[in-house]
Amino acid sequence: MKAKVFVTLKPSVLDPQGKAIHHSVESLGFAGIGDVRQGKYFEITFDPSTDINQARTSVERIAKDVLANPVIEDYKVEVEA
Amino acid sequence: MKAKVFVTLKPSVLDPQGKAIHHSVESLGFAGIGDVRQGKYFEITFDPSTDINQARTSVERIAKDVLANPVIEDYKVEVEA
Repeated sequence: MKAKVFVTLKPSVLDPQGKAIHHSVESLGFAGIGDVRQGKYFEITFDPSTDINQARTSVERIAKDVLANPVIEDYKVEVEA
Repeated sequence: MKAKVFVTLKPSVLDPQGKAIHHSVESLGFAGIGDVRQGKYFEITFDPSTDINQARTSVERIAKDVLANPVIEDYKVEVEA
C-alpha cells in the first residue's frame, strides 16, 4: 500500500524558488508560462498487512505534523491500496 | 491550464532525507511504515491561450532539461486542461 503526500506553499506565500525557475525557463525560450510553484512530494510505503483506514489516518497525521508546516503550507494526501 | 511535474529519485538511488523522515516518523510512534521517499513537486500554470499539445511538449522538455536530473531522477508529467 502506498501513500502520496503533496506539500505546496499557500497561494499567499511568496515562492522565490518557483520565481527563479520561471525566470530560467523563460530565458530558455519557453513561452506562455504564467507561474511556477515548487512544492515537495513524498511517497510512503506501508507494510502490506496495514489496514487502509489506519494507514490513511497515519498519513494525515504525518503530513500535518511532520511533512508540512501548516502555517505557510497546504498538503494533500492520496492513499492507494 | 495547469501542469504538474513530479520528480523522484530513481529506486536504485539512496535517499538519506527519506530515511531520516522514516526514522523520525517511527520514533513518533507511527507503525507499519516500510519506506519513505522524498521527491519534488512543481505546478506550472500556462496562459489560458496556450494550446494543450504545445503545453504538454513544453512541460516534457522543461521537466527533462530543467527540473529533473535524468541521471539519478525519474519524472512524471500531468497536464490538466
